[in-house]
This record gives sequence, structure tokens and C-alpha cells, in this order.
Amino acid sequence: MKVFGKDYRAVWMNGRLVKVINQPLLPHKFEVIALKNHRETANAIQTMIIRGAGTIGATAAFGFAQAALEAPAKRFLPYLLKAYDTLNKTRPTAADLKHALDRVLEQIVPVLVATQSIERARKAAVAEANAICDEYARNGRKVAEHGLRLIRNGTRMLTHCNAGWLALVDWGSAPAPVYLAHRKGRDVFVYVDETRPRAQGANLTSWEFMQEGIPHEIIADNAAGFFMRQGKVDLVITGADRIAANGDTANKIGTYEKAVLARENGVPFYIAAPTSTIDLHCATGADIPIEYRAEEEVHCLTGRDEQGRLRRVKISPNGAKASNPAFDVTPARYIKGIITEKGIIPAARAAIRRVKGM
Amino acid sequence: MKVFGKDYRAVWMNGRLVKVINQPLLPHKFEVIALKNHRETANAIQTMIIRGAGTIGATAAFGFAQAALEAPAKRFLPYLLKAYDTLNKTRPTAADLKHALDRVLEQIVPVLVATQSIERARKAAVAEANAICDEYARNGRKVAEHGLRLIRNGTRMLTHCNAGWLALVDWGSAPAPVYLAHRKGRDVFVYVDETRPRAQGANLTSWEFMQEGIPHEIIADNAAGFFMRQGKVDLVITGADRIAANGDTANKIGTYEKAVLARENGVPFYIAAPTSTIDLHCATGADIPIEYRAEEEVHCLTGRDEQGRLRRVKISPNGAKASNPAFDVTPARYIKGIITEKGIIPAARAAIRRVKGM
Repeated sequence: MKVFGKDYRAVWMNGRLVKVINQPLLPHKFEVIALKNHRETANAIQTMIIRGAGTIGATAAFGFAQAALEAPAKRFLPYLLKAYDTLNKTRPTAADLKHALDRVLEQIVPVLVATQSIERARKAAVAEANAICDEYARNGRKVAEHGLRLIRNGTRMLTHCNAGWLALVDWGSAPAPVYLAHRKGRDVFVYVDETRPRAQGANLTSWEFMQEGIPHEIIADNAAGFFMRQGKVDLVITGADRIAANGDTANKIGTYEKAVLARENGVPFYIAAPTSTIDLHCATGADIPIEYRAEEEVHCLTGRDEQGRLRRVKISPNGAKASNPAFDVTPARYIKGIITEKGIIPAARAAIRRVKGM
Repeated sequence: MKVFGKDYRAVWMNGRLVKVINQPLLPHKFEVIALKNHRETANAIQTMIIRGAGTIGATAAFGFAQAALEAPAKRFLPYLLKAYDTLNKTRPTAADLKHALDRVLEQIVPVLVATQSIERARKAAVAEANAICDEYARNGRKVAEHGLRLIRNGTRMLTHCNAGWLALVDWGSAPAPVYLAHRKGRDVFVYVDETRPRAQGANLTSWEFMQEGIPHEIIADNAAGFFMRQGKVDLVITGADRIAANGDTANKIGTYEKAVLARENGVPFYIAAPTSTIDLHCATGADIPIEYRAEEEVHCLTGRDEQGRLRRVKISPNGAKASNPAFDVTPARYIKGIITEKGIIPAARAAIRRVKGM
């Protein structure tokens, strides 16, 4: 999507380098970082230089391809398995992470067995990582097309966190239908939840919308219910970090709150996500691990001071404790539908199995 | 309540000076400001140097007493009526503001009519303002006593915003029962909603709790529903800015969200407030005016940098818009009871009329 009028993806590979947009600097500064090896790439995932289900998946795939390029011929597979582990441990809630690593591994092993050529195995790894990345971009566009029928002229949508192109390589999921509707000339408006503690709504979604010219207002997470009750929200769409086999969905902390409030106010609540986010190994939301992150994310925020310098400030008293669950699970009964690249499906076991081709 | 071991109130009068704790500096710096005349006092209310229903009421009363002390004998009443207007316009949602001003005015006028003595009218104004302030302090203690039965040993409470002693002169409302339970040796724990946009939970409630030694954790507003759904919250108590005749309650933005989530999860949701917060002129919540505040409160936050310097930082993109309703209305049906200085009553018309002595 557009950055200062030029097309970008959230991650791409260039030779041995994995290039990513430095997301914690947004919206304050636009910077591309070159990650030199799979450890740097793993670190970028863990420290959330990049984040979002699809971008994590694509970046992990590229990181694993880097590992294939780095791995010495004599301990090629052991090196790769260690890299798999390093990359896989970076973010526990994201389903796309393991999915992407497995896909790359499943290309490497047969090539290695069939040809005994490390070089061919490396090429297969890089090709698969690129294929995964392209797929996210394509799926984002398909999510946009399927979700388009939910966005009428004049629709006022609410979204939580960032499930935009920064989170999903290109197009994104939750805002993808809005991007497409806007490009088709429909009048759209989005309430953007700030999304504390990391403020990805205020930082990233608003920035994406500014770049694409989407009319929107940032609101405190606390105000979402207020606007729904006032009848000012026609539709809620959020992304997903992991969708269980029964439709229960893990997403950014606060998603559950907005889903409950949407139902209470008769506002349809949708999840938008590529089917790669569905994890059939999780029977229900209870099986999805919830990542707790550092207390500091609650105590502190980063922004620009009057001189435009980036500063991290602490808002709470010294010595105060905080608790920081990064995700919550929205039970399927609150979800009107899941917008996938294969169409809009009910958040229900049978439809989910069908869309996964099981 | 305690500040570094010494007893304080949120506001008091000293000769012609109104003294207040500078709340926007908390928890970063503890500072007392002396307000020299009713205009400075009105300005302190409007700019939220002080905030919270009772502290607004007491400060307005003191400001009005200042006006009585300042008013020239020749245009005593016109000066006072102008001051009434100035003070009354500072915060549109707070019921206690007008209530306090009316009480002071109702003391001044009969004294003036009966004695023709400006000096006696001035004394009556100051005495009534002090009486109002003392009443908030006493009522806070009574709210603590009535609410105490809700706090068992081991209770884990959740609260939103700051309805502590900073907001209500002394003791406070929502946390008052916790303060008393803690002083009686009961094991209590409180989840403190950060309460964006102004972060009064992280800034003020956490600071009050640190000073009194109450075990607590600050959480993102988005996490309240998560902890309720996990069964980790036994009770929600928040304060109120205005309670309508039918029990609908205006309080800090986000209160409605937490009330809906509490009911959804079977967690009892209480409002704690002195009966002065009840406004029988508002038949329902629809009659309560909702204050919208500056967009900047959503875009920016103030905190300490690494060197301990106070800095205001902007987290959202330049040019992005925000919308900032400061309060919402929680319909009475979500409220299990209202903890007042006269006991815990249902959020229902008959009980409310009774407690107001109508």
C-alpha cells in the first residue's frame, strides 16, 4: 500500500537481507531496517519491530530462508532445526508463525532428500518464503473483495488494533474492505480504537489511513461502547492472531470487550483474517496460549515531544505494578462472520473445517 | 488520606486562598497550589488542576466563597451572580458543581436580606463552603462503612478512573470501602483501569493506593473484560459524576463498557457516590449532558522521561483527528446498587427518591 505515494509491503527479502518497516517508529518516523541473519530477524519479531499475524508469518518464513542460506553444509539440518526453534519461540500466540515455518521446512526436506543438494534446498526455502509473502498480499486483496459487500456508502466502521497492511504484508484484513471501498469512491468512516497498551490503532492504523486518505477518528478504547450505544457504529471488523477450530478468536487485548459491546448494541462484529490464521489444533479458544508481555508496556508510552524527538515517558507511579495480557479470546458466539480470502464464513466448526479443506 | 504519611485533603481554604493538590502533576510530583481569587479557582476546575465530583463541588463552593470575599459592597449580588455563572460553566457534566454553588448562594441571600450585612453574608459563604467540604469528607467515610460489607477477605475488585479521595476531598467513593477494609486488616486486591485518555487510574488511583499501601495492578482499559472472563474479578465499583432520577449514571468514559462486561460475566457492578451526585432534574441518563473534551487528550500523554522530567508526547500521526467524549452513561439495569453515605440502595427511581428525602 501507499507510503508517501509509493507502494510498499511490510516485509520483503533482498538477497540475504530481510527488509522490514520499523513499526515502533511509526507514525513518528518512516524507516526501513535490513536484518542480516535469522537471529536478527527472530529478534525483530520478538521485540515487535514487525508485528501482526501475516507479517510475522512472512518475516519468520524469510528468517527461516536466511537460516537455510547461512547454514553450513556439514550441519545443515541441525542448524535449521535450531533456527526453527529460535524463530518459533518468538511470539507464542501467533498461529501464522509456525504455519509459515512448517511450510518452508516442508519444501526444504523433500528437496534435500531427493537431490542431496544443499544449494537447491536453499533456493527452495527462499522461493517458498517469497511464495508465502506473496500469498498474504494476494489474500489481503481477496479479503478486501469479499468484505466489500459489508461496506455501503456511508458505513461507519470501528476497528481495534492494527490489522492493516503493516500487520499482513499488504492490504491487511480488517481495513482491507475499507481500502477497496474508498478506492471505489464509497464514502466510508472508521473509528480507530487507540489500542492500549501499545497504541497500534493510534500509531499504525491511523498512519495507514492517513497515507491512503481514509476518513477516520482515533478514540480512546473506553469510548468504543459509547459510540456504539449512540448508534454511530454500523459495523465492527477486527483482525485475528489465531482462530480456533470452533471459531473462538484470539486477537489484541480488548477485542473481546468490543465484541461483547457490539452484540449488546446490535452492531455486527466480524473477524477478518486469512485462513492461515485458523489453527485446527486448537479445538476452542481455551487451547490458545495467551502471551503476557512486559509491565513496562502499560507503564510507559512512546511519542514525539514538541521538538519532534522520540521520547518514552512513564505515566504511572514508581514502584506500581501492572499486568499486561497482550491478547484475549472472543468466543465464537459474538462473531457474526469471518472474512477470509475464500469468502465470508460463519464462526462455526463445520464452516471452518470446510474452508480449511478438511 | 495519607501523602508520604501525612494527612491531606484534595482541597481546603486558608484565608482568601483556596489550596488544591495539583492533580495533573501526579504521580510525578506532589505540589500544592494556592488559588488567589474565584477566577483562578474557576480556571483550576476547568483545566482539571482538580477533578472528581466531590472535589469539584468543594472547590466550586470555596471559589464562590472567594467571590463573596472579593465582591465590592456596591455591586455585591451582581458580582456574585456573575461568579456563579463563571464557576457553573467550568464543567458541564458534574452535578456536584451546581449543587455546591446553590448551597452557598442559599446561605448568602437570606443573611443579606435579614441583616443587610455584607460582612455576615461573606462569613456565611465561607462557613457553608467549609461545611460542604467537611460533608464530602464525612460522606466518604460513610460510603466506606456501608461498602465494607462488599469487601471480604481476598476480594479482588476492579475500578475505573479515580473516584478516590483526590476526587472527593477525602476517603473517596469507589475505593473508600477498600481503604477501610485494608485498615481493618482484610486482604484486598484491586485491578486499576488505566483510564485513557487522561489515565487517571494509572496516574491518580495507583498513586493513592501506593500511599495507602493497597495491593493493586494497573491494567490497560482493554484488559478489564479479559480478567472478568477469567473469573479474576469479584466486584466492580466505580464512582459517578451524575446519577439521574432513574439510576442511570454518568461517569468517566469507559464505565459503560466495564458495566456491560461485568453483567456479561456475572460480576456485580456497583456505583459509589455521595447522594449529592444524584440529580433529580435528570429523569434519565438521556438528560445528562456529555462533555466532549479536546482532541489533544487522545493524541497526547504526559509522563516522566528517563531523567524524571515531565514531558508531553504525541502518539498519533500529525493531522490525524480524534473524538473525545469524556463521560458515558451506564443504564441503571447494569448497576447492582449505589453505595451512598446513607447506605447501599438499588439503582431505581423509588429508592433514589427516598434517599434524597423526596
